[in-house]
Order: sequence, then structure tokens, then C-alpha cells
Amino acid sequence: MRDAYHEDLDSLTDKLVEMTRLVRSAISRATTALLDADLQLAESVISQDDAVDRLFTEIEATIFELMARQQPVAVDLRLIITALRMGADLERMGDMAEHVAKIARLRHPESAIPPELRPMILEMGQIAENLVTKAGSCVATRDVESALELEQDDDAMDGLHRRLFTKILHKDWQHGVEPAIDITLVGRYYERYADHSVRVARDVVYLVTGSRPA
Amino acid sequence: MRDAYHEDLDSLTDKLVEMTRLVRSAISRATTALLDADLQLAESVISQDDAVDRLFTEIEATIFELMARQQPVAVDLRLIITALRMGADLERMGDMAEHVAKIARLRHPESAIPPELRPMILEMGQIAENLVTKAGSCVATRDVESALELEQDDDAMDGLHRRLFTKILHKDWQHGVEPAIDITLVGRYYERYADHSVRVARDVVYLVTGSRPA
Repeated sequence: MRDAYHEDLDSLTDKLVEMTRLVRSAISRATTALLDADLQLAESVISQDDAVDRLFTEIEATIFELMARQQPVAVDLRLIITALRMGADLERMGDMAEHVAKIARLRHPESAIPPELRPMILEMGQIAENLVTKAGSCVATRDVESALELEQDDDAMDGLHRRLFTKILHKDWQHGVEPAIDITLVGRYYERYADHSVRVARDVVYLVTGSRPA
Repeated sequence: MRDAYHEDLDSLTDKLVEMTRLVRSAISRATTALLDADLQLAESVISQDDAVDRLFTEIEATIFELMARQQPVAVDLRLIITALRMGADLERMGDMAEHVAKIARLRHPESAIPPELRPMILEMGQIAENLVTKAGSCVATRDVESALELEQDDDAMDGLHRRLFTKILHKDWQHGVEPAIDITLVGRYYERYADHSVRVARDVVYLVTGSRPA
């Protein structure tokens, strides 16, 4: 049987994995809400971000308890330090999904995304989902090799993000300023979401190896 | 004479205050670089962000040492937890200043900001500087009252940020899509910079009182 100390440590990992599940679902629904101008779905993302924030608060409380009562060393200490960082990253990923959903809500009943850009936004949403799914699996399994892969996967997001700007800055752009602004912000939210996923994966590498990837 | 433990704790505060100085200088120079299309100044902001990142790395290392060797409790433990969070916020503020400087560099020798919007951008830069100056002073003095004031000061930034959007979405906007995108991003960078300052101040409240402001 595990003692209370190890149960608390395990609960940190469990809650981080649960956070990755929630923010994966949030970005998935936010992308659909944005593309389909689905107000109800957008509202669900916005109202459910509280659950992500609550999990992070619980993680912080557990860490405080652990540090006050025990003197964790080595990998346990690294788990505590990285859980704080990973929790903060995942909380921001929830915020990014919420921001996307708010743009969907703002433009409803229209879609904020002109038809010719929808495939790109869909792809950004899918990359975001893949990244967070992988990050969650790395947190659960502590698999360093797949954690290191995330950085490459993120390159695809950066490439799409650049292509998105080429589209809105092209001389044939006919949708005016407002959609350009929406797309600029949406693009940044997806790109930040992906960056935070990579940071979570990098923290898994640090957790396991004790040093940060180059 | 202070022992090594308390010296380490003090060094955390010193380094956080030093980070606020560096990121204050960074946003100040970035704003000037943006308004004056000053390439050299923009480059200085971009190249000097490393110093901010290094300080945060040092803070993390000190925290790790402290936690591995000692068992801090109460306010010491809260300092360690909040130093990690404040350091992360300040590091992001450095990134925001760097992003502003990169837009200045991208549009050089033009200014990214049309003349009629310069007063607003200048004001956003000044609010950002005031916020981080106050936040730095709160970290140094642990003054809860002025830490709580920061939230109100940030309202001015949010108001300006909204007015900025009104300008670029106005039917009389004549500068086309590219400046609108630059301004959208710049506006978001200042607003995020301000948000992070507020988070630093909120962490000072938690550090001193043991509970987060409502």
C-alpha cells in the first residue's frame, strides 16, 4: 500500500493528466465552435474553463502541503517543481481555448473565419489536439523520447501560423480589417497553445533526466 | 550576520527586483523603438532579453537548492512558491517587450504605428512602465496595500486596449490590413505585459497574507 506522501505525489500526476484531457477537449470544441459558428459549444468552452483553473488550484495546494510536511528530494522534488510549471502551462492552454471560443461567440451567427481559411484553422486545431494528447501521454508515462518529439511536431504549427499571415496580408485579401484581426488573434492563440504543450513536454524531460533539453 | 539559508532567501527577492528593473527598461526601450522606428534600440531589447532569462534560471536553481537542503515553512515556503511564479511572469514580460521590439524591427525604416495612434501606444507603454515599477517596489517592500492597487491601474490599460480596437475597426481606418495586424499584436503584448505585472503584485499579497486577493 502507498503511504500518504506517495499518494499525494501520484495525485499530482493524475491531476496534470486530467488537465491535459480537459484542455484537449476545450481546444477541440473551441475549433468546432469557431468553424461552425456554434454558440452553444462556444459557451460550453467558456463556462467549463473554471474546472481547469480549479484543478490547478488543487495541484498548488497539494504541493504546498507536500513541501510543508515533507522534505522531498531528487525526482520527487523535481516532480513538485515541474508540476507547478506544467500546471501553469495547462491553465494557460485552457485560457487560449477560451479566447478562441470567445471570438466564435463575438462573431455569432457569422463565422469569424472566411471559408477559404477554414481548412488551415481546422489543421491548427488538429495539431493543437495532437500536441496536448502527446503531452498528456508523456506526463502519464514519463516517456522522454516522445517528449522530445513534441518540439518537431510544433514546427508544423509554426509553419501554418506563418502561412496564415501570408493569406491575410495577400493583395487579394477581400475580407477587410475585422476578420484579419480575428484571424491574427486566433492564430496567436493556437500558436501559444502549442508552445505551452511543448513546455509541458520539456518539463517531463527535466523531471526524468534532471536536465533541460537543449 | 545572516546565515546561508537566509542569504539565499534574500537573493530570491533581490533577483526578482532586478528582473522588474530589466523588463521595465525593456518595455520602455521597445516603446521608443516602435514609435521612432529605431532599429538599434529594437535590437538592444531583443539581444538583452537573455539577461532576464538567465536571472530566472538562477532563481530556479536557488529554489531547488533551498528545497533540497532545507525544509522551509510558512512565509519562507510561500516566498519560494511565489518566486517561481513571479519569475515566470517577469520572464514573460521580457518576452512581450521583445515581441514589441521585433515588430519595430520588422517594419523599420517605417514605424509600425500610424501617427494618429502614437499617443495611445505611448500611453500604453507608460502604463506598462508604471505597473512594473510599482510591482517591483511591492516585491521589494512587501507592501500589500499598494500591491492591491495595481489591479485598478491595470483597468486603464484594458480601457486603452479596447479603444485601440475601436480605432482600427473604424470605418475611417485608411491604413489597410498590415498596420491593423501589427497594432492588434502590439496591443495584446502591452495588455499581457500589464496582466503579468498584476499577477506579480497578487503574488506579493499571497506571500505576505497567505491568501490570494479575491
